[in-house]
Amino acid sequence: MTSTEELLSEPLDKVNQRILQAIDSPVDLVNSVCRHLILGGGKRIRPLLLLLAAGLIRPEAIGDEKILKLAAAIEILHTATLMHDDVIDESEMRRGLKSANNVFGNSIAVLGGDYLFTKAFDLASVTENSEIFRDFFRAVSTIASGEIEQMGNIDRPELSEQAYCHTIYAKTGVLFEIAVRIPGIFFKVSESELEGLTGYGRSLGNAFQIADDILDYTADAGELGKNIGDDLQNHKITLPLIYTLNALGEPERKQALDAIARCDLPMIMNFAAKTGAIARCYEKAESEAASARKALEVFPDSPFREQLCSLAERAVKRTR
Amino acid sequence: MTSTEELLSEPLDKVNQRILQAIDSPVDLVNSVCRHLILGGGKRIRPLLLLLAAGLIRPEAIGDEKILKLAAAIEILHTATLMHDDVIDESEMRRGLKSANNVFGNSIAVLGGDYLFTKAFDLASVTENSEIFRDFFRAVSTIASGEIEQMGNIDRPELSEQAYCHTIYAKTGVLFEIAVRIPGIFFKVSESELEGLTGYGRSLGNAFQIADDILDYTADAGELGKNIGDDLQNHKITLPLIYTLNALGEPERKQALDAIARCDLPMIMNFAAKTGAIARCYEKAESEAASARKALEVFPDSPFREQLCSLAERAVKRTR
Repeated sequence: MTSTEELLSEPLDKVNQRILQAIDSPVDLVNSVCRHLILGGGKRIRPLLLLLAAGLIRPEAIGDEKILKLAAAIEILHTATLMHDDVIDESEMRRGLKSANNVFGNSIAVLGGDYLFTKAFDLASVTENSEIFRDFFRAVSTIASGEIEQMGNIDRPELSEQAYCHTIYAKTGVLFEIAVRIPGIFFKVSESELEGLTGYGRSLGNAFQIADDILDYTADAGELGKNIGDDLQNHKITLPLIYTLNALGEPERKQALDAIARCDLPMIMNFAAKTGAIARCYEKAESEAASARKALEVFPDSPFREQLCSLAERAVKRTR
Repeated sequence: MTSTEELLSEPLDKVNQRILQAIDSPVDLVNSVCRHLILGGGKRIRPLLLLLAAGLIRPEAIGDEKILKLAAAIEILHTATLMHDDVIDESEMRRGLKSANNVFGNSIAVLGGDYLFTKAFDLASVTENSEIFRDFFRAVSTIASGEIEQMGNIDRPELSEQAYCHTIYAKTGVLFEIAVRIPGIFFKVSESELEGLTGYGRSLGNAFQIADDILDYTADAGELGKNIGDDLQNHKITLPLIYTLNALGEPERKQALDAIARCDLPMIMNFAAKTGAIARCYEKAESEAASARKALEVFPDSPFREQLCSLAERAVKRTR
């Protein structure tokens, strides 16, 4: 199997150049705030997905200027959402560095995010394709309204699995989905191929986010830059809690709800272990990863398809 | 002269309907935050400008569905910027009502603004016109980077008139400019006509903003919903201060700078009166209003041109 690095190191370097060109401003402070997060060590998963999907459809087009710009656009868009997220969550750190709001203040982080949103859209305008625009806009409005909805759900531990799935689609799935859909729209693939790409992106996003949410309740989490119990502390109800509560009978369910209310992590971990909730979360994440791989069967085998399938496997494996 | 109300009451009603349709969300809290400001009594100046410019170019097209949607888009965009502004300025009131951040909290106001931005862009996508998109994106990135720049200039009373003009273009001019440019782009007017529209919007924005900044130093300001000295309290250096400082000799200039540093409004008003700075500001605003009217001479006389010219006159008169 050809490694992702070999296939993509050159186009990814170019994507990084396009990102820096696109966000460049004559105002020093604008450059400082935008570069702070863009250069702060993101994994560039979304541009990687976009390039791999482009290669899957048309291998020779992976270095096309428009594809590189679309890949840059999706990373800038993602960065804009992170910048606003950190304001909202009052986060002090991001990727091991001080967050933009921490360094520059909330006001400049809000405006920096707005600036980045429009620079991302502006880059995408190179395609002159309204359908691509609409995917970008839909992603941002889905992310924003999903977060607002999640805020309305805070401290509601009776959240359903369905509501949780809706939240993680908004939080992670929709950007993964458009990352792989956009090359499909750009190269005018068939309807069934576009469905395959859409399904892949959405399931991959679910697998990633469920795995991330498991991390918050497992011992290895520290390695990956999260602290155990962060979601609980922030009153975020995720799948491990939902599965735990669903599996408990009435007297214990009440005890677990009380433990959630007072953020009693050891007691919740105890309930989660007893009910097998974490194992069920892994099953769910693995089933999403399998759906992602299956959705790509509409495309012939290629190094790009292998890479995309391997990303889906690693989405879950990284947390075990 | 036909009144604006007669010319535009029906299309403006339709614009309001399009706005509400466009921002509608299945999430109740999203609707609440977005409707709060949209229904909170804005004057709809930007959609009005867009409709008048459309009528100027093609009178029969003023009720075109695409024109109505573009007019709705610019008001939604403006509302998004206000929602973020109120977070940034920690404003408690907007248009005589509690601000969105005050009612719903900063986080939901940040996300509500993001949601509105993309809904505005999404509405504009009805035109399938990348040039129109680029004007929308340029406006938002200009507004955001202009505000960041202004934050870097806070407490720098030695601000030049040039830097001030740059700030007010970002704050007001650019949205007025694209409001009248967009129908020009949509109807593919000649280059000289597009220049005329651009010049009109830009000068009108300058006239409006300078008049607004004068209000902050004049006694009638209370009527218009601003408190005298707000800008000074917020350490914002505007034209009345710049003209005052420019006109003073060295010992007095030092005294005025000290008065600015400790927000001594009576002393500053005293210096402003003595130097004739407010009168010079009015001259500047009137000269911008005259430039706006002159820029429209490229178009034949019509009720729409009269209305646009009258708006420019009223921009300054409302403050005298």
